[in-house]
Amino acid sequence: MMEEKEISQAVIGRLPRYLRYLGDLKDEGMERVSSQELSERMKVTASQIRQDLNNFGGFGQQGYGYNVEYLYREISRILGLDRTHRFIIIGAGNLGQALGGYLNFERRGFLFSGIFDKNPELTGKEVRGIRVQPMEEMEQFIRDNDVDIAVLAIPKASAVEVAEHLVQNGIKAIWNFAHVDLNVPEGIQVENVHLSDSLMKLSYNINRYLQENRKSAEL
Amino acid sequence: MMEEKEISQAVIGRLPRYLRYLGDLKDEGMERVSSQELSERMKVTASQIRQDLNNFGGFGQQGYGYNVEYLYREISRILGLDRTHRFIIIGAGNLGQALGGYLNFERRGFLFSGIFDKNPELTGKEVRGIRVQPMEEMEQFIRDNDVDIAVLAIPKASAVEVAEHLVQNGIKAIWNFAHVDLNVPEGIQVENVHLSDSLMKLSYNINRYLQENRKSAEL
Repeated sequence: MMEEKEISQAVIGRLPRYLRYLGDLKDEGMERVSSQELSERMKVTASQIRQDLNNFGGFGQQGYGYNVEYLYREISRILGLDRTHRFIIIGAGNLGQALGGYLNFERRGFLFSGIFDKNPELTGKEVRGIRVQPMEEMEQFIRDNDVDIAVLAIPKASAVEVAEHLVQNGIKAIWNFAHVDLNVPEGIQVENVHLSDSLMKLSYNINRYLQENRKSAEL
Repeated sequence: MMEEKEISQAVIGRLPRYLRYLGDLKDEGMERVSSQELSERMKVTASQIRQDLNNFGGFGQQGYGYNVEYLYREISRILGLDRTHRFIIIGAGNLGQALGGYLNFERRGFLFSGIFDKNPELTGKEVRGIRVQPMEEMEQFIRDNDVDIAVLAIPKASAVEVAEHLVQNGIKAIWNFAHVDLNVPEGIQVENVHLSDSLMKLSYNINRYLQENRKSAEL
Protein backbone atom coordinates (compact mmCIF):
# COMPACT_ATOMS: atom_id res chain seq x y z
CA MET A 1 0.00 0.00 0.00
CA MET A 2 1.60 3.23 -1.10
CA GLU A 3 1.16 6.90 -0.28
CA GLU A 4 -1.56 8.52 -2.29
CA LYS A 5 -0.79 11.52 -4.44
CA GLU A 6 -3.43 13.85 -5.79
CA ILE A 7 -5.42 12.09 -8.51
CA SER A 8 -7.49 14.08 -10.99
CA GLN A 9 -11.28 13.75 -10.92
CA ALA A 10 -11.10 12.65 -14.55
CA VAL A 11 -9.04 9.61 -13.57
CA ILE A 12 -11.26 8.92 -10.55
CA GLY A 13 -14.24 9.03 -12.87
CA ARG A 14 -12.67 6.26 -14.96
CA LEU A 15 -11.76 3.97 -12.04
CA PRO A 16 -15.19 2.34 -11.67
CA ARG A 17 -14.97 1.20 -15.28
CA TYR A 18 -11.52 -0.35 -14.67
CA LEU A 19 -12.96 -2.04 -11.63
CA ARG A 20 -15.84 -3.47 -13.66
CA TYR A 21 -13.51 -4.97 -16.29
CA LEU A 22 -11.09 -6.27 -13.67
CA GLY A 23 -14.02 -7.88 -11.86
CA ASP A 24 -14.97 -9.65 -15.10
CA LEU A 25 -11.36 -10.84 -15.55
CA LYS A 26 -11.31 -12.12 -11.98
CA ASP A 27 -14.57 -13.99 -12.61
CA GLU A 28 -12.97 -15.55 -15.68
CA GLY A 29 -10.12 -16.76 -13.48
CA MET A 30 -7.43 -14.59 -15.09
CA GLU A 31 -4.50 -13.79 -12.82
CA ARG A 32 -2.78 -11.16 -14.91
CA VAL A 33 -3.53 -8.91 -17.83
CA SER A 34 -1.39 -6.75 -20.11
CA SER A 35 -2.31 -3.15 -20.83
CA GLN A 36 -2.63 -4.27 -24.48
CA GLU A 37 -5.24 -6.89 -23.63
CA LEU A 38 -7.12 -4.57 -21.30
CA SER A 39 -7.00 -1.96 -24.05
CA GLU A 40 -8.71 -4.30 -26.53
CA ARG A 41 -11.45 -5.19 -24.09
CA MET A 42 -12.08 -1.66 -22.87
CA LYS A 43 -11.58 0.04 -26.24
CA VAL A 44 -9.26 2.71 -24.86
CA THR A 45 -5.59 3.01 -25.82
CA ALA A 46 -3.00 0.99 -23.92
CA SER A 47 -1.13 4.22 -23.29
CA GLN A 48 -4.19 5.78 -21.64
CA ILE A 49 -4.47 2.69 -19.41
CA ARG A 50 -0.81 2.85 -18.44
CA GLN A 51 -1.08 6.55 -17.69
CA ASP A 52 -4.20 6.14 -15.58
CA LEU A 53 -2.87 3.21 -13.60
CA ASN A 54 0.55 4.80 -13.13
CA ASN A 55 -1.20 7.28 -10.89
CA PHE A 56 -1.20 4.60 -8.25
CA GLY A 57 2.34 3.44 -9.00
CA GLY A 58 3.79 -0.01 -9.05
CA PHE A 59 0.89 -2.11 -10.33
CA GLY A 60 2.29 -3.04 -13.71
CA GLN A 61 5.55 -4.74 -14.56
CA GLN A 62 7.24 -4.78 -17.94
CA GLY A 63 6.61 -8.17 -19.58
CA TYR A 64 4.26 -9.33 -16.85
CA GLY A 65 1.37 -6.92 -17.03
CA TYR A 66 -0.97 -6.23 -14.18
CA ASN A 67 -1.89 -8.57 -11.36
CA VAL A 68 -5.68 -8.65 -11.68
CA GLU A 69 -6.50 -9.45 -8.07
CA TYR A 70 -4.09 -6.88 -6.67
CA LEU A 71 -5.19 -4.12 -9.03
CA TYR A 72 -8.85 -4.88 -8.32
CA ARG A 73 -8.24 -4.68 -4.58
CA GLU A 74 -6.21 -1.46 -4.77
CA ILE A 75 -8.74 0.33 -6.95
CA SER A 76 -11.51 -0.81 -4.60
CA ARG A 77 -9.57 0.59 -1.68
CA ILE A 78 -8.90 3.90 -3.45
CA LEU A 79 -12.61 4.22 -4.20
CA GLY A 80 -13.37 3.60 -0.52
CA LEU A 81 -15.13 0.31 -1.24
CA ASP A 82 -13.23 -1.46 1.53
CA ARG A 83 -15.55 0.33 3.97
CA THR A 84 -19.30 -0.10 4.13
CA HIS A 85 -21.63 2.85 3.75
CA ARG A 86 -25.20 2.89 4.93
CA PHE A 87 -27.68 4.76 2.78
CA ILE A 88 -31.29 5.82 3.01
CA ILE A 89 -33.60 6.70 0.15
CA ILE A 90 -35.89 9.71 0.25
CA GLY A 91 -38.84 9.09 -2.04
CA ALA A 92 -40.47 5.69 -2.42
CA GLY A 93 -41.82 6.17 -5.94
CA ASN A 94 -40.70 3.95 -8.79
CA LEU A 95 -37.20 5.40 -8.89
CA GLY A 96 -36.70 5.10 -5.12
CA GLN A 97 -37.95 1.53 -5.24
CA ALA A 98 -35.69 0.71 -8.17
CA LEU A 99 -32.64 2.09 -6.33
CA GLY A 100 -33.57 0.21 -3.15
CA GLY A 101 -33.81 -2.99 -5.14
CA TYR A 102 -30.31 -2.96 -6.68
CA LEU A 103 -28.32 -5.82 -5.19
CA ASN A 104 -25.21 -4.54 -6.98
CA PHE A 105 -24.90 -1.64 -4.58
CA GLU A 106 -24.78 -4.04 -1.65
CA ARG A 107 -21.99 -6.02 -3.27
CA ARG A 108 -19.95 -2.80 -3.35
CA GLY A 109 -20.53 -2.16 0.35
CA PHE A 110 -23.46 0.24 0.05
CA LEU A 111 -26.11 -0.98 2.47
CA PHE A 112 -29.72 0.00 1.88
CA SER A 113 -30.95 0.82 5.38
CA GLY A 114 -34.13 2.84 5.17
CA ILE A 115 -36.63 4.49 2.85
CA PHE A 116 -38.88 7.46 3.54
CA ASP A 117 -41.79 9.12 1.80
CA LYS A 118 -44.17 11.91 2.70
CA ASN A 119 -47.06 10.10 1.04
CA PRO A 120 -48.94 8.24 3.84
CA GLU A 121 -50.28 5.74 1.32
CA LEU A 122 -46.77 4.38 0.85
CA THR A 123 -46.04 4.00 4.57
CA GLY A 124 -45.53 0.37 5.48
CA LYS A 125 -45.01 -0.78 1.92
CA GLU A 126 -41.92 -2.98 1.71
CA VAL A 127 -38.92 -2.39 -0.59
CA ARG A 128 -36.53 -5.33 -0.47
CA GLY A 129 -37.76 -6.19 3.02
CA ILE A 130 -37.51 -2.62 4.31
CA ARG A 131 -40.64 -0.80 5.35
CA VAL A 132 -41.32 2.69 3.94
CA GLN A 133 -41.42 5.20 6.83
CA PRO A 134 -42.94 8.67 7.02
CA MET A 135 -40.55 11.63 6.70
CA GLU A 136 -41.02 12.49 10.39
CA GLU A 137 -39.07 9.41 11.42
CA MET A 138 -36.07 10.25 9.26
CA GLU A 139 -34.13 12.39 11.77
CA GLN A 140 -34.16 9.80 14.52
CA PHE A 141 -33.38 7.03 12.06
CA ILE A 142 -30.25 8.77 10.73
CA ARG A 143 -28.97 9.29 14.26
CA ASP A 144 -29.69 5.72 15.40
CA ASN A 145 -28.32 3.95 12.34
CA ASP A 146 -25.06 5.66 11.45
CA VAL A 147 -26.28 6.54 7.94
CA ASP A 148 -23.85 8.51 5.81
CA ILE A 149 -25.46 8.66 2.37
CA ALA A 150 -28.94 9.89 1.43
CA VAL A 151 -30.40 9.25 -2.01
CA LEU A 152 -32.78 11.96 -3.20
CA ALA A 153 -35.42 10.36 -5.41
CA ILE A 154 -37.98 13.14 -5.09
CA PRO A 155 -39.18 15.92 -7.37
CA LYS A 156 -37.24 19.15 -7.84
CA ALA A 157 -39.71 21.25 -5.84
CA SER A 158 -38.88 19.82 -2.41
CA ALA A 159 -35.33 18.60 -3.01
CA VAL A 160 -33.43 21.69 -1.84
CA GLU A 161 -35.32 21.87 1.44
CA VAL A 162 -35.05 18.14 2.12
CA ALA A 163 -31.31 18.23 1.39
CA GLU A 164 -30.80 21.00 3.98
CA HIS A 165 -32.72 18.98 6.51
CA LEU A 166 -30.62 15.87 5.79
CA VAL A 167 -27.37 17.77 6.21
CA GLN A 168 -28.54 19.30 9.50
CA ASN A 169 -29.14 15.78 10.72
CA GLY A 170 -25.69 14.48 9.96
CA ILE A 171 -25.83 13.14 6.40
CA LYS A 172 -22.34 13.38 4.81
CA ALA A 173 -23.19 12.71 1.19
CA ILE A 174 -26.14 13.10 -1.14
CA TRP A 175 -26.78 11.14 -4.28
CA ASN A 176 -29.12 13.54 -6.03
CA PHE A 177 -31.62 12.41 -8.67
CA ALA A 178 -33.75 15.56 -8.36
CA HIS A 179 -33.36 17.83 -11.36
CA VAL A 180 -31.96 20.78 -9.43
CA ASP A 181 -28.56 21.78 -8.08
CA LEU A 182 -28.29 21.52 -4.31
CA ASN A 183 -26.66 24.13 -2.18
CA VAL A 184 -24.78 22.31 0.58
CA PRO A 185 -22.04 23.33 3.03
CA GLU A 186 -18.40 22.51 2.30
CA GLY A 187 -17.47 18.97 3.17
CA ILE A 188 -20.84 17.55 2.13
CA GLN A 189 -20.38 15.45 -0.99
CA VAL A 190 -22.96 15.60 -3.75
CA GLU A 191 -23.16 13.45 -6.83
CA ASN A 192 -25.84 14.46 -9.31
CA VAL A 193 -27.62 12.13 -11.68
CA HIS A 194 -29.56 14.47 -13.94
CA LEU A 195 -31.33 12.02 -16.22
CA SER A 196 -32.74 14.60 -18.63
CA ASP A 197 -29.25 16.01 -19.19
CA SER A 198 -28.05 12.63 -20.30
CA LEU A 199 -31.03 12.23 -22.62
CA MET A 200 -30.29 15.63 -24.17
CA LYS A 201 -26.70 14.63 -24.94
CA LEU A 202 -28.13 11.61 -26.73
CA SER A 203 -30.45 13.85 -28.69
CA TYR A 204 -27.55 16.15 -29.63
CA ASN A 205 -25.53 13.23 -30.93
CA ILE A 206 -28.43 11.79 -32.94
CA ASN A 207 -29.00 15.11 -34.67
CA ARG A 208 -25.34 15.80 -35.23
CA TYR A 209 -24.95 12.43 -36.91
CA LEU A 210 -27.97 13.04 -39.10
CA GLN A 211 -26.67 16.47 -40.12
CA GLU A 212 -23.21 15.12 -40.96
CA ASN A 213 -24.70 12.37 -43.06
CA ARG A 214 -26.88 14.83 -44.85
CA LYS A 215 -23.81 16.97 -45.58
CA SER A 216 -21.81 14.00 -46.95
CA ALA A 217 -24.79 13.00 -49.11
CA GLU A 218 -24.85 16.50 -50.58
CA LEU A 219 -21.17 16.47 -51.54
CA MET B 1 -29.39 31.08 -37.08
CA MET B 2 -25.67 30.71 -37.73
CA GLU B 3 -23.44 28.01 -39.17
CA GLU B 4 -22.34 25.53 -36.57
CA LYS B 5 -18.68 24.97 -35.90
CA GLU B 6 -17.35 21.91 -34.11
CA ILE B 7 -18.24 22.11 -30.42
CA SER B 8 -16.38 20.00 -27.87
CA GLN B 9 -18.25 17.25 -26.04
CA ALA B 10 -17.30 18.96 -22.77
CA VAL B 11 -19.25 22.07 -23.80
CA ILE B 12 -22.16 19.95 -25.07
CA GLY B 13 -22.20 18.19 -21.73
CA ARG B 14 -22.68 21.56 -20.01
CA LEU B 15 -25.48 22.82 -22.29
CA PRO B 16 -28.36 21.01 -20.56
CA ARG B 17 -27.42 22.76 -17.33
CA TYR B 18 -27.46 26.18 -19.07
CA LEU B 19 -30.83 25.26 -20.50
CA ARG B 20 -32.16 24.39 -17.05
CA TYR B 21 -31.09 27.73 -15.59
CA LEU B 22 -32.34 29.68 -18.58
CA GLY B 23 -35.67 27.87 -18.27
CA ASP B 24 -35.89 29.00 -14.64
CA LEU B 25 -35.09 32.60 -15.67
CA LYS B 26 -37.77 32.43 -18.35
CA ASP B 27 -40.27 31.15 -15.78
CA GLU B 28 -39.35 34.10 -13.55
CA GLY B 29 -40.13 36.42 -16.44
CA MET B 30 -36.56 37.67 -16.94
CA GLU B 31 -35.80 38.92 -20.44
CA ARG B 32 -32.05 39.26 -20.21
CA VAL B 33 -29.25 38.12 -17.97
CA SER B 34 -25.59 39.15 -17.64
CA SER B 35 -22.84 36.54 -17.56
CA GLN B 36 -22.09 37.86 -14.03
CA GLU B 37 -25.60 37.14 -12.82
CA LEU B 38 -25.72 33.75 -14.49
CA SER B 39 -22.34 33.03 -12.93
CA GLU B 40 -23.65 33.70 -9.43
CA ARG B 41 -26.67 31.47 -9.94
CA MET B 42 -24.80 28.63 -11.58
CA LYS B 43 -21.68 28.90 -9.44
CA VAL B 44 -19.30 28.80 -12.38
CA THR B 45 -17.07 31.71 -13.42
CA ALA B 46 -18.46 34.40 -15.73
CA SER B 47 -15.49 33.80 -18.00
CA GLN B 48 -16.36 30.11 -18.33
CA ILE B 49 -19.91 31.09 -19.25
CA ARG B 50 -18.72 33.60 -21.85
CA GLN B 51 -16.34 31.05 -23.32
CA ASP B 52 -18.97 28.33 -23.49
CA LEU B 53 -21.63 30.54 -25.02
CA ASN B 54 -19.18 32.15 -27.46
CA ASN B 55 -19.07 28.77 -29.17
CA PHE B 56 -22.39 29.65 -30.70
CA GLY B 57 -21.47 33.24 -31.45
CA GLY B 58 -23.48 36.37 -31.15
CA PHE B 59 -25.72 35.67 -28.17
CA GLY B 60 -24.24 38.15 -25.76
CA GLN B 61 -23.79 41.88 -26.12
CA GLN B 62 -21.50 44.10 -24.08
CA GLY B 63 -23.57 46.00 -21.54
CA TYR B 64 -26.77 44.16 -22.40
CA GLY B 65 -26.04 40.57 -21.49
CA TYR B 66 -27.85 37.63 -22.97
CA ASN B 67 -31.37 37.54 -24.28
CA VAL B 68 -32.89 34.72 -22.20
CA GLU B 69 -35.57 33.62 -24.63
CA TYR B 70 -33.23 33.64 -27.63
CA LEU B 71 -30.43 31.81 -25.83
CA TYR B 72 -32.88 29.24 -24.50
CA ARG B 73 -34.26 28.61 -27.97
CA GLU B 74 -30.85 28.38 -29.63
CA ILE B 75 -29.46 25.94 -27.05
CA SER B 76 -32.62 23.85 -27.42
CA ARG B 77 -32.11 23.77 -31.15
CA ILE B 78 -28.44 22.84 -30.85
CA LEU B 79 -29.40 19.98 -28.54
CA GLY B 80 -31.92 18.80 -31.10
CA LEU B 81 -34.87 19.53 -28.81
CA ASP B 82 -36.75 21.30 -31.58
CA ARG B 83 -37.51 17.85 -33.00
CA THR B 84 -39.48 15.15 -31.24
CA HIS B 85 -38.00 11.74 -30.59
CA ARG B 86 -40.02 8.64 -29.88
CA PHE B 87 -38.58 6.21 -27.38
CA ILE B 88 -39.40 2.74 -26.13
CA ILE B 89 -38.31 1.19 -22.86
CA ILE B 90 -36.99 -2.36 -22.64
CA GLY B 91 -37.60 -3.70 -19.15
CA ALA B 92 -40.73 -2.88 -17.16
CA GLY B 93 -39.25 -3.29 -13.69
CA ASN B 94 -39.16 -0.40 -11.24
CA LEU B 95 -36.52 1.51 -13.20
CA GLY B 96 -38.33 1.07 -16.53
CA GLN B 97 -41.56 2.20 -14.91
CA ALA B 98 -39.84 5.20 -13.31
CA LEU B 99 -38.40 6.27 -16.67
CA GLY B 100 -41.73 5.82 -18.41
CA GLY B 101 -43.36 8.01 -15.78
CA TYR B 102 -41.16 11.10 -16.15
CA LEU B 103 -43.23 13.89 -17.61
CA ASN B 104 -40.09 16.01 -17.91
CA PHE B 105 -38.87 13.97 -20.84
CA GLU B 106 -42.07 14.68 -22.72
CA ARG B 107 -41.66 18.41 -22.17
CA ARG B 108 -38.28 18.14 -23.92
CA GLY B 109 -39.79 16.37 -26.91
CA PHE B 110 -39.02 12.79 -25.92
CA LEU B 111 -42.22 10.82 -26.36
CA PHE B 112 -42.70 7.61 -24.40
CA SER B 113 -44.24 5.28 -26.99
CA GLY B 114 -43.91 1.69 -25.81
CA ILE B 115 -42.58 -0.59 -23.10
CA PHE B 116 -41.55 -4.22 -23.38
CA ASP B 117 -40.66 -7.00 -20.96
CA LYS B 118 -39.95 -10.68 -21.31
CA ASN B 119 -41.74 -11.44 -18.05
CA PRO B 120 -45.28 -12.53 -19.03
CA GLU B 121 -46.59 -11.48 -15.63
CA LEU B 122 -45.96 -7.86 -16.55
CA THR B 123 -47.71 -8.04 -19.93
CA GLY B 124 -50.73 -5.78 -20.00
CA LYS B 125 -49.70 -3.79 -16.94
CA GLU B 126 -50.00 -0.07 -17.67
CA VAL B 127 -47.22 2.51 -17.34
CA ARG B 128 -48.57 6.04 -17.82
CA GLY B 129 -51.40 4.65 -19.91
CA ILE B 130 -49.14 2.47 -22.05
CA ARG B 131 -49.54 -1.30 -21.92
CA VAL B 132 -46.45 -3.46 -21.32
CA GLN B 133 -45.93 -5.74 -24.33
CA PRO B 134 -43.99 -8.98 -24.69
CA MET B 135 -40.56 -8.77 -26.32
CA GLU B 136 -41.83 -10.59 -29.41
CA GLU B 137 -43.89 -7.55 -30.39
CA MET B 138 -40.94 -5.17 -30.25
CA GLU B 139 -39.69 -5.55 -33.84
CA GLN B 140 -43.01 -4.78 -35.44
CA PHE B 141 -43.63 -1.94 -33.04
CA ILE B 142 -40.35 -0.18 -33.87
CA ARG B 143 -41.12 -0.41 -37.58
CA ASP B 144 -44.71 0.80 -37.25
CA ASN B 145 -44.05 3.68 -34.88
CA ASP B 146 -40.93 5.45 -36.13
CA VAL B 147 -39.09 4.91 -32.84
CA ASP B 148 -35.54 6.22 -32.72
CA ILE B 149 -34.44 5.77 -29.10
CA ALA B 150 -34.51 2.61 -26.98
CA VAL B 151 -33.96 2.75 -23.23
CA LEU B 152 -32.31 -0.36 -21.80
CA ALA B 153 -33.58 -0.90 -18.27
CA ILE B 154 -32.68 -4.57 -18.06
CA PRO B 155 -29.93 -6.51 -16.29
CA LYS B 156 -26.41 -6.76 -17.64
CA ALA B 157 -26.78 -10.41 -18.71
CA SER B 158 -29.16 -9.84 -21.61
CA ALA B 159 -28.32 -6.22 -22.48
CA VAL B 160 -25.70 -6.84 -25.17
CA GLU B 161 -27.93 -9.27 -27.07
CA VAL B 162 -31.02 -7.07 -26.80
CA ALA B 163 -29.02 -4.04 -27.99
CA GLU B 164 -27.91 -5.92 -31.12
CA HIS B 165 -31.48 -6.89 -31.81
CA LEU B 166 -32.65 -3.29 -31.40
CA VAL B 167 -30.03 -1.99 -33.80
CA GLN B 168 -30.92 -4.62 -36.39
CA ASN B 169 -34.47 -3.37 -36.23
CA GLY B 170 -33.66 0.24 -36.89
CA ILE B 171 -33.04 1.86 -33.49
CA LYS B 172 -30.67 4.82 -33.88
CA ALA B 173 -29.80 5.50 -30.24
CA ILE B 174 -29.62 3.59 -26.99
CA TRP B 175 -29.91 5.04 -23.52
CA ASN B 176 -28.21 2.29 -21.57
CA PHE B 177 -28.86 1.71 -17.88
CA ALA B 178 -27.48 -1.85 -17.94
CA HIS B 179 -24.14 -2.08 -16.19
CA VAL B 180 -22.20 -3.22 -19.23
CA ASP B 181 -20.63 -1.52 -22.26
CA LEU B 182 -22.51 -2.14 -25.49
CA ASN B 183 -20.83 -2.94 -28.75
CA VAL B 184 -22.76 -1.13 -31.48
CA PRO B 185 -21.99 -0.23 -35.11
CA GLU B 186 -20.77 3.24 -36.01
CA GLY B 187 -23.51 5.78 -36.25
CA ILE B 188 -25.54 4.27 -33.41
CA GLN B 189 -25.48 6.65 -30.47
CA VAL B 190 -25.13 5.28 -26.96
CA GLU B 191 -25.39 7.18 -23.72
CA ASN B 192 -24.57 5.15 -20.63
CA VAL B 193 -25.97 5.74 -17.17
CA HIS B 194 -23.91 3.47 -14.96
CA LEU B 195 -25.45 4.12 -11.57
CA SER B 196 -22.90 2.14 -9.54
CA ASP B 197 -20.08 4.18 -11.08
CA SER B 198 -21.66 7.36 -9.86
CA LEU B 199 -22.12 5.87 -6.38
CA MET B 200 -18.44 4.90 -6.31
CA LYS B 201 -17.36 8.44 -7.12
CA LEU B 202 -19.43 9.56 -4.15
CA SER B 203 -17.73 6.98 -1.97
CA TYR B 204 -14.30 8.14 -3.17
CA ASN B 205 -15.09 11.73 -2.27
CA ILE B 206 -16.46 10.82 1.17
CA ASN B 207 -13.31 8.91 2.03
CA ARG B 208 -10.98 11.50 0.59
CA TYR B 209 -12.61 14.18 2.69
CA LEU B 210 -12.36 12.03 5.83
CA GLN B 211 -8.69 11.33 5.16
CA GLU B 212 -7.87 14.99 4.57
CA ASN B 213 -9.61 15.97 7.75
CA ARG B 214 -7.75 13.30 9.67
CA LYS B 215 -4.48 14.64 8.28
CA SER B 216 -5.27 18.23 9.24
CA ALA B 217 -6.28 17.05 12.72
CA GLU B 218 -2.91 15.35 13.08
CA LEU B 219 -0.90 18.44 12.16
